[in-house]
Amino acid sequence: MKKDFVLVLAPDSFKESMTAKEACEAMERGAKKVNPDITCIHVPMADGGEGTMQSLVDATGGTVFTTTVVGPLGKQVEAQYGILGDGKIGILEMASASGIELVPQADRNPLTATTYGTGQLIKACLDKGVKKLLIGIGGSATNDGGAGMVQALGGRLLDKEGNELAYGGGELGKLHSIDLTGFDARLKDVVVEVACDVSNPLCGEKGASHVFGPQKGATKEMVELLDANLRHYAEVIKEQTGKDVIDAPGAGAAGGLGAGLMAFADGTLKKGIEMVIEYAGLEDKVKDADMVWTGEGSIDFQTQYGKTPLGVATVAKKYNKPVVALAGRVGGGSEVLFDKGIDAIFGIMKGVCSIEEALAKGQENVEKTAENIIRLMNL
Amino acid sequence: MKKDFVLVLAPDSFKESMTAKEACEAMERGAKKVNPDITCIHVPMADGGEGTMQSLVDATGGTVFTTTVVGPLGKQVEAQYGILGDGKIGILEMASASGIELVPQADRNPLTATTYGTGQLIKACLDKGVKKLLIGIGGSATNDGGAGMVQALGGRLLDKEGNELAYGGGELGKLHSIDLTGFDARLKDVVVEVACDVSNPLCGEKGASHVFGPQKGATKEMVELLDANLRHYAEVIKEQTGKDVIDAPGAGAAGGLGAGLMAFADGTLKKGIEMVIEYAGLEDKVKDADMVWTGEGSIDFQTQYGKTPLGVATVAKKYNKPVVALAGRVGGGSEVLFDKGIDAIFGIMKGVCSIEEALAKGQENVEKTAENIIRLMNL
Repeated sequence: MKKDFVLVLAPDSFKESMTAKEACEAMERGAKKVNPDITCIHVPMADGGEGTMQSLVDATGGTVFTTTVVGPLGKQVEAQYGILGDGKIGILEMASASGIELVPQADRNPLTATTYGTGQLIKACLDKGVKKLLIGIGGSATNDGGAGMVQALGGRLLDKEGNELAYGGGELGKLHSIDLTGFDARLKDVVVEVACDVSNPLCGEKGASHVFGPQKGATKEMVELLDANLRHYAEVIKEQTGKDVIDAPGAGAAGGLGAGLMAFADGTLKKGIEMVIEYAGLEDKVKDADMVWTGEGSIDFQTQYGKTPLGVATVAKKYNKPVVALAGRVGGGSEVLFDKGIDAIFGIMKGVCSIEEALAKGQENVEKTAENIIRLMNL
Repeated sequence: MKKDFVLVLAPDSFKESMTAKEACEAMERGAKKVNPDITCIHVPMADGGEGTMQSLVDATGGTVFTTTVVGPLGKQVEAQYGILGDGKIGILEMASASGIELVPQADRNPLTATTYGTGQLIKACLDKGVKKLLIGIGGSATNDGGAGMVQALGGRLLDKEGNELAYGGGELGKLHSIDLTGFDARLKDVVVEVACDVSNPLCGEKGASHVFGPQKGATKEMVELLDANLRHYAEVIKEQTGKDVIDAPGAGAAGGLGAGLMAFADGTLKKGIEMVIEYAGLEDKVKDADMVWTGEGSIDFQTQYGKTPLGVATVAKKYNKPVVALAGRVGGGSEVLFDKGIDAIFGIMKGVCSIEEALAKGQENVEKTAENIIRLMNL
């Protein structure tokens, strides 16, 4: 190995074991134990899902803020958002404010769950003066088409009598008009990009309610009602704003928050991994590397569908860089990745143990595996 | 990697998962999946313990035979011995005929346990016309000083009245004379080498009975009796054969079978791993290799004490060959091996699973790990 070897470390988080940044650090410790002269460039990654805010903040040297917002069921929750290192880009995950993990299984109810908190996070970013907003929308508890978000930003959703609607997708059947007079005008000057890997339309068999409603607690009857309500909501939107979101690919993501962000924030959808690659500046860093390492808690045949290791490998292969992946679990079919840019995959486990022990020892195991990879490369 | 790359595969068995030969085959499958032109030289290894007979038979293209012998408690058991590929060297493990694993915990009794079956295995080898005998003596149930072995080979252990002693170390106090008239004369022309990693003397605080007796079921009183009996046995041996084995290093191995083999078979003791290295022809094969792989079910700091991976590495380093080890478990302190000739160690586990699943998937996991090591080396 040459003396000025440059190693780009671009793992995702190892879920429940370490953040992407911690994975970078463990990889560096292992590599430098063998060759202290290696230059390690940390690019903590994510794929638009959980951990995306943290990784992009870490990748850019930004800041995470915590604030209290309205949770999916109306109770206050602590939610986070980030400002990237340049101070001009805000980033948030809707799951932090309106996510399904915030609601106990028994209480899940997409009729009343609201994206209000997500709107509050957007507002918090606007208060920081951002010019761009990156929004991750996975893991939602909601099916309200982003109606709550509109309310949080000052829009008023009114019924025939001019009364404001309560929270949740169950209310949208009563929607008569949307009063945007008080809607936060700052959003007009902000570019909104939404990390979204699904292309479901807002309504119908492949729409938000049918496909994602049941996992949020919707019964068959609720699904029908929610679907009809979202269709009505889209019609009102079209009438009032001229925007036709009903069949837009991705409009059905996150219980229709996709549609809401398109209609009211001029949001454009982007694959999550591509957004992260862009804002983490991965390509620039990879260009000059001698080798790229990636990794994730679990790698298997699904990794080819928009997951971080494959995204990293795809960028690396544009520049013909070798790519090595580390994973806690190397599952069935992972060998398909060899044809897609990942050159070698190493499991980090050092023996039989419980899942708790494996998670607790994750960083140590990444470090040791990294050390042995460099040792082998030195032979 | 150059086209005519020569890879010596010299793993131990992965206990309860695969034989050393199967480990070689799995390594080759993985390596050749990447580079079909690699030449793989199989040297299934062992360290003198369990699996030594199988590995040396496999390493030399020999044959394993099964025969019925007297087990440690007098019941018939199926035991195995091998003839190495040249047809002139017999190999057996005493544990196969007289091993502690053959006796349920509750029935273990070193007063009556006999090495008779081990003597029968020696006889079986003599019947095949061997000129040399390799004997592994780990895992014994016995504390009889090899008295049973002497009986099986035609020697008569007599008390004062000229009656033959019954089986076991508990009888030896009554020993008055040993009649070797009928003792198998063929043994005189056979070189006997004993794989033995301990240097315990026959008697005393560090002797067979005190150190190993308790784990074979001896109470404190039994230990004292057994120790006194072995001392008496050694005195009779000295009187009759002129051989003084009582303080010989290793005489106390395997319940004194070490002493018995020295006295009655002119056996010489040798470190197990060194015996295997010699008869597997490891050094000759390593000389011309580009790289050496070894491995074992578990690798940790104890591996430095006479275990196969370290033995293999020591030979490889004489010729400056790089050494990579694979293991199911990479335990604490394994990094000490980096200073002792093992260049890199890879765990083969692909995630959290039960020990049963890990054992069942051993070969698959070795293969996959081998594949990724070669993939990394190709970068």
